[in-house]
Amino acid sequence: MLRIDLNADVGESYGVFKVGHDEKLMSVITSANIACGFHSGDYNTMAETVSLAKKHGVGVGAHPGFQDLIGFGRREMVMTPEEIYRMVLYQIGALDAFCRVENIPMVHVKPHGALYNFAARDRVVAESIAQAVYDVNPKLILFGLCNSELIKAAHKIGLKTASEAFADRTYTDEGELTSRTRDNALHTSVEAMKKQVLEIVKHGYVTSVTGKKIDLQTDTICIHGDGDYAVEVAHELKKALLTEKVEIKNVGE
Amino acid sequence: MLRIDLNADVGESYGVFKVGHDEKLMSVITSANIACGFHSGDYNTMAETVSLAKKHGVGVGAHPGFQDLIGFGRREMVMTPEEIYRMVLYQIGALDAFCRVENIPMVHVKPHGALYNFAARDRVVAESIAQAVYDVNPKLILFGLCNSELIKAAHKIGLKTASEAFADRTYTDEGELTSRTRDNALHTSVEAMKKQVLEIVKHGYVTSVTGKKIDLQTDTICIHGDGDYAVEVAHELKKALLTEKVEIKNVGE
Amino acid sequence: MLRIDLNADVGESYGVFKVGHDEKLMSVITSANIACGFHSGDYNTMAETVSLAKKHGVGVGAHPGFQDLIGFGRREMVMTPEEIYRMVLYQIGALDAFCRVENIPMVHVKPHGALYNFAARDRVVAESIAQAVYDVNPKLILFGLCNSELIKAAHKIGLKTASEAFADRTYTDEGELTSRTRDNALHTSVEAMKKQVLEIVKHGYVTSVTGKKIDLQTDTICIHGDGDYAVEVAHELKKALLTEKVEIKNVGE
Amino acid sequence: MLRIDLNADVGESYGVFKVGHDEKLMSVITSANIACGFHSGDYNTMAETVSLAKKHGVGVGAHPGFQDLIGFGRREMVMTPEEIYRMVLYQIGALDAFCRVENIPMVHVKPHGALYNFAARDRVVAESIAQAVYDVNPKLILFGLCNSELIKAAHKIGLKTASEAFADRTYTDEGELTSRTRDNALHTSVEAMKKQVLEIVKHGYVTSVTGKKIDLQTDTICIHGDGDYAVEVAHELKKALLTEKVEIKNVGE
Repeated sequence: MLRIDLNADVGESYGVFKVGHDEKLMSVITSANIACGFHSGDYNTMAETVSLAKKHGVGVGAHPGFQDLIGFGRREMVMTPEEIYRMVLYQIGALDAFCRVENIPMVHVKPHGALYNFAARDRVVAESIAQAVYDVNPKLILFGLCNSELIKAAHKIGLKTASEAFADRTYTDEGELTSRTRDNALHTSVEAMKKQVLEIVKHGYVTSVTGKKIDLQTDTICIHGDGDYAVEVAHELKKALLTEKVEIKNVGE
Repeated sequence: MLRIDLNADVGESYGVFKVGHDEKLMSVITSANIACGFHSGDYNTMAETVSLAKKHGVGVGAHPGFQDLIGFGRREMVMTPEEIYRMVLYQIGALDAFCRVENIPMVHVKPHGALYNFAARDRVVAESIAQAVYDVNPKLILFGLCNSELIKAAHKIGLKTASEAFADRTYTDEGELTSRTRDNALHTSVEAMKKQVLEIVKHGYVTSVTGKKIDLQTDTICIHGDGDYAVEVAHELKKALLTEKVEIKNVGE
Repeated sequence: MLRIDLNADVGESYGVFKVGHDEKLMSVITSANIACGFHSGDYNTMAETVSLAKKHGVGVGAHPGFQDLIGFGRREMVMTPEEIYRMVLYQIGALDAFCRVENIPMVHVKPHGALYNFAARDRVVAESIAQAVYDVNPKLILFGLCNSELIKAAHKIGLKTASEAFADRTYTDEGELTSRTRDNALHTSVEAMKKQVLEIVKHGYVTSVTGKKIDLQTDTICIHGDGDYAVEVAHELKKALLTEKVEIKNVGE
Repeated sequence: MLRIDLNADVGESYGVFKVGHDEKLMSVITSANIACGFHSGDYNTMAETVSLAKKHGVGVGAHPGFQDLIGFGRREMVMTPEEIYRMVLYQIGALDAFCRVENIPMVHVKPHGALYNFAARDRVVAESIAQAVYDVNPKLILFGLCNSELIKAAHKIGLKTASEAFADRTYTDEGELTSRTRDNALHTSVEAMKKQVLEIVKHGYVTSVTGKKIDLQTDTICIHGDGDYAVEVAHELKKALLTEKVEIKNVGE
């Protein structure tokens, strides 16, 4: 039977700055990527988000990012491999404390924003992150872009991975995400997203922007939680998957 | 046989700002209170300090403080009990990740600066901290001022404690630390410090500023690491204790 | 002819965290209190907000607060008078640079949140703030709560002031704001707010929660910009004032 | 008569983290580059450093950097030209408030660390910085590396500049600084520094690492304030210049 995990970035509020629709999203997703205080997500938000994930039976993952609140972790920063290792470690540990007091295990780690993109293409950064995850807890599952350096780095040291595809991003002929600077970077219709998700999950390929079928072995689909219709879209995608008898399940189960 | 633990605040560097004499202090102390990134101690410093403590066989403890780098955690901040609980949890978790990758256990927790003082006198703050420590790991030992609210709060929930006295601070007739705003708040001679430490450890009392003997059951002595002669003074105190056949041992052993 | 200034806190977004309805509010108010990067309002937000105020002909004021993003400057921090002086100075200077490149003068300064409340009741804090404002530019107008220590401190050194009243806060018999911890701290109906604003502006008094008439000489009314109906309420209040032939004008004109 | 300005980075302490030898350096230099709170230099340090510069008759300049305290502004960050413009503006304004209350003019601006290097080679970054300086105060003098994009950008808009050379850095045949990753990046002997400074100031050239004479029109020499012998070296250089009848004077005079 076909199965897929649905993940979303949550816990991105900071102090009085409230963003996202976490409560509603939690009823759709099976993996929650929770910000750890560096690009967003203060300790109050982390506590509340871990508690919310537990309530909904959603798997908890750390979502470490660059220490750059103004840039929301979307600006690449030049750091040594050792610094990246430690920066990731710190954030995983911080979130883990909230899992421990809630008596639930942390299931996965997914780098955020610029760190995610950096790790997708740069082997050294990828290896730093994978090693940090492995060293702190070898049972953790590392989320990364399908076919990325991050996935390869994890495999090399025996760390479990979940290859990720996107519902609303388009793909190039090389199987990479179309740059956000391009007009056609995003699917705008729910129908296009549904089609893409079903192709990926049922048939293991994605149709590129030029119409080519590109292999894409995927364990988890990223759902975006921001935007006015995010939650409705997420529900639509889920319904489409269930209609096709796809089991929606956390990657750790 | 008499025994005592010697602790010091270490890992207080931040980025390029290097402070303290951690390497040298580690050869004297048995417990290291390591800053966790909020009042000081970035992830690089934390990694290096945990590694250094391991190398010297010194027990590692989290040293959580207010999130106030400019004030070095020495300015009291108004926070709800729930926020204090979460703030402490976050910092313990962050440091614990570095312990895990070094494969050593975290032994204790000691609040820093204004949080330490706040917890000494305020029952609600004390209970928030004690509960956070207990919930994340009930084997941790909570360090607090002798006879403080923090020690009481820990005992109430069955958390192990280490009552702390100071080598260089003077005491009032009530067994409290003389306020730093007073001229006689500090011992300035090594002889006076030695005398105080030996009285505390050997006889269980301290001589107050007016000459009274005040009961003080103490498990650990705080050694200050800053100042030009800090390390020399620490060595002198240690030598004096060893001469008197006092065993210097980590509280967790 | 009666006249009043209408002010609101704006420019409170931070990085990707967007809050408030600044663009809409600007068409109602005559004074904009712009956050200066410490409790909120990064340099991008500041630039855009100053530009927006200029476009709408709204007077620009600095809105300095405690350096506490997580707490949004609503948590009191213990600082020396000298530190408060310098902290306020820094923020005024930072905002002033944006005024200079837009070629508009800064008109006023209004402390934010916990700093505002602290300055209302504490003479020393009030004097530190007033002196900083005076020293950096003696033509600036200092906004403070009617009858507060801040207003008194400003008068003592010859600094111009604007006494502020609130549209949606209720008042005690002593002419103070009812504590937010009380159920009746806020007016919930637009009618009650309109009545209060007209009483203040036309008759110079406010009706306290027990029904007493309390003298309140007011130069500016604070309009809240958050909440779903904030802008609609602001428009209602403005309309009510204009209907009563009250001139709505910036305090500096 | 030959003349030169001597500048140094000062005011780099942050809260309890005290670095540098500012008091001593001030008796040597004629231009002080003062950190503005982003990579270092909190409001207390800024106040004290501006006051110190005034006391010694040293010209005050803003030393804006990336908002990265852990990295001390030495890590390049990806930002849009508009963001750089605003980030620089903010910091100049903040420091200017301290100049105003001390009743001294700000004389110059020198970007710090990674921002300085970025602006030396990237035309867009250079133009953003130059425009910010010009817009906030066209009388300010912009410090930049000799022959850099920053100097060119300033000239293009009519902003005054001071071309900077270094006493302790070596130069390539192209007139660029030898990369710090190279062994021969730094002069280690005071004699070599003296020779270089005198060649630059008296003859307008520098001898490259391969022995070539490279033209270098220089208005100011950067003296490093960190390191144990920094102040002694600074005094030696100054003495050597005075012996050669070079007038040591602030660029603004």
